[in-house]
Amino acid sequence: MDIIAIITEKKKLFEDYLHDYLAGINAVSGIFDAFSYSLSAGGKRIRPILTMLACETLGGSSIQALPAGLAIEMIHTFSLIHDDLPALDNDGLRRGMPTCHKRFGEATAILAGDALIFQALSVISSSGYPEKVETDILRVIADVCGIDGLVQGEYLDVMAEGKDLTLDEIADIYRKKTSRLFELCMYSGARIATDDTQKIHAFMQYGAFLGLAFQAIDDILDITSTDEVLGKTSGKDQIQGKATVIKALGLENARLWAGQMTNEATRSIAQISDKRSNVLEELAQWMAQRVM
Amino acid sequence: MDIIAIITEKKKLFEDYLHDYLAGINAVSGIFDAFSYSLSAGGKRIRPILTMLACETLGGSSIQALPAGLAIEMIHTFSLIHDDLPALDNDGLRRGMPTCHKRFGEATAILAGDALIFQALSVISSSGYPEKVETDILRVIADVCGIDGLVQGEYLDVMAEGKDLTLDEIADIYRKKTSRLFELCMYSGARIATDDTQKIHAFMQYGAFLGLAFQAIDDILDITSTDEVLGKTSGKDQIQGKATVIKALGLENARLWAGQMTNEATRSIAQISDKRSNVLEELAQWMAQRVM
Repeated sequence: MDIIAIITEKKKLFEDYLHDYLAGINAVSGIFDAFSYSLSAGGKRIRPILTMLACETLGGSSIQALPAGLAIEMIHTFSLIHDDLPALDNDGLRRGMPTCHKRFGEATAILAGDALIFQALSVISSSGYPEKVETDILRVIADVCGIDGLVQGEYLDVMAEGKDLTLDEIADIYRKKTSRLFELCMYSGARIATDDTQKIHAFMQYGAFLGLAFQAIDDILDITSTDEVLGKTSGKDQIQGKATVIKALGLENARLWAGQMTNEATRSIAQISDKRSNVLEELAQWMAQRVM
Repeated sequence: MDIIAIITEKKKLFEDYLHDYLAGINAVSGIFDAFSYSLSAGGKRIRPILTMLACETLGGSSIQALPAGLAIEMIHTFSLIHDDLPALDNDGLRRGMPTCHKRFGEATAILAGDALIFQALSVISSSGYPEKVETDILRVIADVCGIDGLVQGEYLDVMAEGKDLTLDEIADIYRKKTSRLFELCMYSGARIATDDTQKIHAFMQYGAFLGLAFQAIDDILDITSTDEVLGKTSGKDQIQGKATVIKALGLENARLWAGQMTNEATRSIAQISDKRSNVLEELAQWMAQRVM
């Protein structure tokens, strides 16, 4: 099966799982409406796909990885909802649709983001994972999302606007706002399948580099693509003076940098190379060439 | 020892623990500054005190209960920070000091609230609780904080402004925005000490009623007290048209209602009455008479 077929299959698995999950929630709440809207708005679903592939590569199944993948997609969606708020990036368009606060108002969007974090915990908590796996995943969630991770990355990203940062500083923002959640995907998927810490560590390394490449490519596309293709406001980084590798290196060198990170990602898992881990290598190469 | 001495001792234990915890975090971040500010701003610390007392009453120690108590105080503080935001209650004064967004700006306050949730998980995750206890507490956190709990309570509270609600509807808001976190305190403290589900359930009932009484008294004090005594903007509920039991019942009947809830709280634990659980009864009576 080629990589696009594999991705399409995993994406479908995830969309069906999400659909069933939302249909099973018996809640009458504007918050539920708001976060369902944002969760269902599509997107690449790269995080649950990564989680599934990590799990499969180490001998587990995609099905086993779905609760972790859903929880991570919820955390990702929470961060998008809050990031789009007027006090932060002030973005009105996301995945081709009005952002959560544009559609439901600011108060509801703030609370919907908050609620998503707890729903993510709830999903992990009712996943049926062995207690040791559950507590391990919880520990990594707390680690990669807090003040040394996702939320700190959003903070640094907002604070960096209009400043000239070094490549190291920009890579640090990328690492926190993007890579750490990719690490969580790889950790969770791998941990569900195995307790081999060496393999898990290699997978997290892969996730870390893949996240850097992914964010660089996202920022490159912000410049080179259009609203219609991206489903969000393109060209905004430059207007807002965002810290991107393009700002530090120029467009062509930014492309090269993204390519290096992609190669580092595949190198991280080279030692555990077999037919299955080739899928992760192909995924990294495919992601490096994406146009949206 | 009388109840005030017990509360004072527990509060001191908690403040020392919080102080050491914050001193041990090695983070250079505006988010850390912001949430430390809000966490350190004092307050009654009723939630960690409840957690400690629940644990002690069932044979555990206050020390054991401190990580859970800290995590819950963090969740409480997250909810205050977000609740005070301009898009929600738009409050500028809290515990006698400028609210988080007034002091650090809105973007930082939103992210500091988010980060506190993950820090709370991190505290639970590194508590050293047995895995089964940790996963049980996690499950209840997810349950009481999300769309059937705290965050939904905040939502209903904001949406109820200016409307005439029935007593049942108001009690439902109180239950979600206040009682469910009190339930979590009682659950966590009890669960650390025992796996006797009957006792744990009775303790949660106590927490549920205590929370209703607590919120009613809070709302009564909003009318009958001053900014200086409360450390927050008094009289605001009426101006904002907040849903309170006073609005539904009038001041005198609201007092009676709070008294009934206090009695229900003590009744919930009457069957496990011994010298130690008397402390919880005294606590409920003391809380019913508080003036700030």
